[in-house]
Amino acid sequence: MFLLVKNVLTSAEIEQIRQIGKSVRFVEGRASNPHNLAKDNLQMDITQPDAVRASNIAGAAIARNEEIRNFVFPKRIASPLLARYEPGMKFGTHADAPFIPLPNAALRSHVSGTVWMTDPSAYEGGELVIHLGSESISIKGEPGSMVVYPSTTLHEVVPVTKGQRLVMITFIESVVSDQIERELLWQLNEIHALEGLKMDWGNRTRLQYVIASLHRKWAS
Amino acid sequence: MFLLVKNVLTSAEIEQIRQIGKSVRFVEGRASNPHNLAKDNLQMDITQPDAVRASNIAGAAIARNEEIRNFVFPKRIASPLLARYEPGMKFGTHADAPFIPLPNAALRSHVSGTVWMTDPSAYEGGELVIHLGSESISIKGEPGSMVVYPSTTLHEVVPVTKGQRLVMITFIESVVSDQIERELLWQLNEIHALEGLKMDWGNRTRLQYVIASLHRKWAS
Amino acid sequence: MFLLVKNVLTSAEIEQIRQIGKSVRFVEGRASNPHNLAKDNLQMDITQPDAVRASNIAGAAIARNEEIRNFVFPKRIASPLLARYEPGMKFGTHADAPFIPLPNAALRSHVSGTVWMTDPSAYEGGELVIHLGSESISIKGEPGSMVVYPSTTLHEVVPVTKGQRLVMITFIESVVSDQIERELLWQLNEIHALEGLKMDWGNRTRLQYVIASLHRKWAS
Amino acid sequence: MFLLVKNVLTSAEIEQIRQIGKSVRFVEGRASNPHNLAKDNLQMDITQPDAVRASNIAGAAIARNEEIRNFVFPKRIASPLLARYEPGMKFGTHADAPFIPLPNAALRSHVSGTVWMTDPSAYEGGELVIHLGSESISIKGEPGSMVVYPSTTLHEVVPVTKGQRLVMITFIESVVSDQIERELLWQLNEIHALEGLKMDWGNRTRLQYVIASLHRKWAS
Amino acid sequence: MFLLVKNVLTSAEIEQIRQIGKSVRFVEGRASNPHNLAKDNLQMDITQPDAVRASNIAGAAIARNEEIRNFVFPKRIASPLLARYEPGMKFGTHADAPFIPLPNAALRSHVSGTVWMTDPSAYEGGELVIHLGSESISIKGEPGSMVVYPSTTLHEVVPVTKGQRLVMITFIESVVSDQIERELLWQLNEIHALEGLKMDWGNRTRLQYVIASLHRKWAS
Amino acid sequence: MFLLVKNVLTSAEIEQIRQIGKSVRFVEGRASNPHNLAKDNLQMDITQPDAVRASNIAGAAIARNEEIRNFVFPKRIASPLLARYEPGMKFGTHADAPFIPLPNAALRSHVSGTVWMTDPSAYEGGELVIHLGSESISIKGEPGSMVVYPSTTLHEVVPVTKGQRLVMITFIESVVSDQIERELLWQLNEIHALEGLKMDWGNRTRLQYVIASLHRKWAS
Repeated sequence: MFLLVKNVLTSAEIEQIRQIGKSVRFVEGRASNPHNLAKDNLQMDITQPDAVRASNIAGAAIARNEEIRNFVFPKRIASPLLARYEPGMKFGTHADAPFIPLPNAALRSHVSGTVWMTDPSAYEGGELVIHLGSESISIKGEPGSMVVYPSTTLHEVVPVTKGQRLVMITFIESVVSDQIERELLWQLNEIHALEGLKMDWGNRTRLQYVIASLHRKWAS
Repeated sequence: MFLLVKNVLTSAEIEQIRQIGKSVRFVEGRASNPHNLAKDNLQMDITQPDAVRASNIAGAAIARNEEIRNFVFPKRIASPLLARYEPGMKFGTHADAPFIPLPNAALRSHVSGTVWMTDPSAYEGGELVIHLGSESISIKGEPGSMVVYPSTTLHEVVPVTKGQRLVMITFIESVVSDQIERELLWQLNEIHALEGLKMDWGNRTRLQYVIASLHRKWAS
Repeated sequence: MFLLVKNVLTSAEIEQIRQIGKSVRFVEGRASNPHNLAKDNLQMDITQPDAVRASNIAGAAIARNEEIRNFVFPKRIASPLLARYEPGMKFGTHADAPFIPLPNAALRSHVSGTVWMTDPSAYEGGELVIHLGSESISIKGEPGSMVVYPSTTLHEVVPVTKGQRLVMITFIESVVSDQIERELLWQLNEIHALEGLKMDWGNRTRLQYVIASLHRKWAS
Repeated sequence: MFLLVKNVLTSAEIEQIRQIGKSVRFVEGRASNPHNLAKDNLQMDITQPDAVRASNIAGAAIARNEEIRNFVFPKRIASPLLARYEPGMKFGTHADAPFIPLPNAALRSHVSGTVWMTDPSAYEGGELVIHLGSESISIKGEPGSMVVYPSTTLHEVVPVTKGQRLVMITFIESVVSDQIERELLWQLNEIHALEGLKMDWGNRTRLQYVIASLHRKWAS
Repeated sequence: MFLLVKNVLTSAEIEQIRQIGKSVRFVEGRASNPHNLAKDNLQMDITQPDAVRASNIAGAAIARNEEIRNFVFPKRIASPLLARYEPGMKFGTHADAPFIPLPNAALRSHVSGTVWMTDPSAYEGGELVIHLGSESISIKGEPGSMVVYPSTTLHEVVPVTKGQRLVMITFIESVVSDQIERELLWQLNEIHALEGLKMDWGNRTRLQYVIASLHRKWAS
Repeated sequence: MFLLVKNVLTSAEIEQIRQIGKSVRFVEGRASNPHNLAKDNLQMDITQPDAVRASNIAGAAIARNEEIRNFVFPKRIASPLLARYEPGMKFGTHADAPFIPLPNAALRSHVSGTVWMTDPSAYEGGELVIHLGSESISIKGEPGSMVVYPSTTLHEVVPVTKGQRLVMITFIESVVSDQIERELLWQLNEIHALEGLKMDWGNRTRLQYVIASLHRKWAS
């Protein structure tokens, strides 16, 4: 399941991060995945204070978004990282690593996210393409919008052919690690939110009971 | 979870089985569980045509009952067996066997059932008592009523002290073998039946989708 | 995961089924799902000998297809059913039923399939659209091609606006009921088929061992 | 499974908490569950030092009780909260929330507990009723006694009709999250404790091996 | 877990099968696994009446053995097949196939078995070696003895260097498909058989309850 | 699965620990398992600074070993403990405790490990014997070598009959708690390491995808 959410970042936040993106130092993306020949992009050098500031702005925006929270059941969110694709750059088909090393303990990446910083009209190519067997989904979001998708997919960023693509990427560990269970729980919560007050009180209570039981059963 | 359903058998069916109960031959209950010292009751000898007829009457009544079907998700129902408790008889605390040998293939007993044949005022003692740790549930049903309960409980029939207790007992293999999953699915189906038509069409479809997904996931 | 396979039916088979489609009697699709207001199409009346013949032709073609077999791990395949959409007809968003009643025992529908009979240029609208949260996949296949997809999705056939859409639909019970486990096993089998002979013999044996262990573990 | 344990609190501890209950400030129970119309009781305001003291007394008593520890396999115990029901008050049928927000990390509520502070003769009504389908269990404990039951039940406190009901309630996260697995492990441990020394050494070792294997397998 | 059981076949049965082994036609073992280069042995041609007779003798002996039944929880046993290793022959390291095609439905091979026909002094080499990482187990049984071991192991028959090795091999589908769960259930049953009558009646009943619950939970 | 790894400790480290072993105070092994009559050995008193130093040397050596890391997927490693067996001492058949109490939180023992300190020629008896039903594995390692094996086995140290046996023992909590899943993941990682660079890039990516998916699915 995929969720594309608009306006996760405000215009002011987008502008701040774009400014940082102009001055901050970028390094080869392969620096963090040396053996990954598929990766050909630039990532901000996270040792700079401005890089940390960009991460914090985007991280706070993601954490406060209710739509994403309801969909992902986040436990921990990795610091978003600014990535830049110049013409010719790409990130070939790959699977995200199951564990992201973090200071306290490795984060299990259940959900991956991309936040767009560039207007889609400002570059050509560069779509995020998620492969689902013989079919695929291609996404190119508006600035400030974010897509979240299971880290258990093969996906790629196709080559940018013109202009520049600026995005922030992140990984989220969910309370509900199985993607199908996570989706079913989200659906029941949505039904409860939209229909609960119309229901007979007893049935509403039963629905809450089922949701609580599944949430407990599937959480880890 | 327990479900006590009234009028599973009609008055005519109860009467037919009572008549059979008067003429049919009974043997010691321990005959079918020789090592079970807790068992001290009488069971009809199932090799007699009348015994088969009694089983068929009760079996058909159980199979047609919608409340039981919705609650149990039955795959196979063992032929109900007539049991009689005279004063002093009992069936001490025990767990039902996980597999019931049947002609084709052993039936996995997920749900146990008791159908009462005798008016509760016609005997003393003889309650079905289900033990749940330090607490217990005690049931003495009306003629024609049936209780279904997980075979994974410790339970007993306390001694009959006066009169005669006549019941039919059976075991059901469910499509959904886990008792907690079975209950959650039943609850969602009940919510759908009672609230579905009041819901926005899209949400109703989502609820059906969740139910279908869980039914598939949990069925075996 | 989705798999669109070309030429599952030969030209001769397509022609045979098209001819049957011209003469066979069709009834309202809702006949088999009376409470489903979303369903507005026509289905062949399966009591006719020609209808059975069409099912058999398509069923045999699906059963012999190695790509589908490798992807689905089929245990049982329901008789394909011819469906027709005239202008204005559609099948609104829905989830497929978890169990399909069949003579011997209900079939658990893990995978749903559509085989196209009509040239895509011969009708407008009528795409099969699979909803995956905010994103979707839209498919309109060539005659004789088949798409298989998890029955655990919300999907629809959007209204046909011009011409006629003729398809055969079916449901498959898989040896591996979980869609994610099914996909992982398929991927390992593909890797073994494509790379096995290049591997050191010991490593090839290890890969076979992992595949056999997962197949056993996940089969039901 | 339910376990009612007597004398979890000593007379002195009961008296201390009763005294605190007389002076401490209570607020509407709905304060901590604003959307729960079923809840109509009073809870102590936990920002007061005396409230913390009452929690600590009860928390320590629960943590030291071996019967409860053996039955629940506690990982974390939420601070018990004093609740008061005046005539007319009740807590309608509800399911406990799956997660209780705590300073460090949310506590998963697997087991719920009630500790009675009032003599049962001092109030009418106010029974804790646990619903198990068509059957139910009704409990009214002695002062200092505690009942623990799976948080995955629908339960209620029926209206108090006379006098005052004072209880402490808590939620426990278990090392073994599934209630059925938790019970089976408890049963094996009890068998080992009661029968182990009578067994042949080799068989005793085998039983320890099974218990250790299940404990590891089911723990999280 | 491994179980080597002596005297599964009687001397008379061993003699009958040895006689059949002298007259029956053998074909290359690779006939039934054409792509398996590791396999270099001879198997009896199962289309001959004598071959069927040998299978039946061994199959009946295995089915009646209580030790094996208790250990394996057999659902179906594939017809044992006579295999012969002449000097230089071997069956290199391999994993057994997860499914064995049988007339009715494929048999899931959970447990593999070897029954020895030849006296160990009559040949050199030819040990059955089961690989468990860096360690291994090597077995060379007495005539009539049988070893059963999880089909989920890498194992081999090392080259025979002198004499002739005659064995019957078979595959068993178990009611309890997971090898670790199967072993734990076997251990509890053994404890019950050996210690049950020494126990307090209530504790014995509890042990039976745990065994029945696990048997139901783990069976498929 | 078992893995015996050589040279986990360097000669210098072995020498350091041997020296500590000569001066450090030992106590009866039963001190840490008072009810375990099977245990008859000596363990170093861990309150001494030298004991801590020995633990640290061995702990660091284990943590840096890539073979062990790949095989065990360690999350936490308990401080290794020096144990000594004089003639006549042994540790009878037992199962390791599922939880090892540690300062922060109990460690779940998934994998047990023994590191040998004494030359095998310097003592008689004292083999580590792992029981797998009717078969067993017997190990007596070189100084500095380590064997890791599932804590879910019955195992023993047979009596030392001559000389002295000095070992360090430890328990490891794994990211992948199920022993069979842990082994399958290890096998796939080995295949990837040994064959990955020979593969077609697309197939290599698919293998990484399967590994990442299983790692996420099975981790806890």
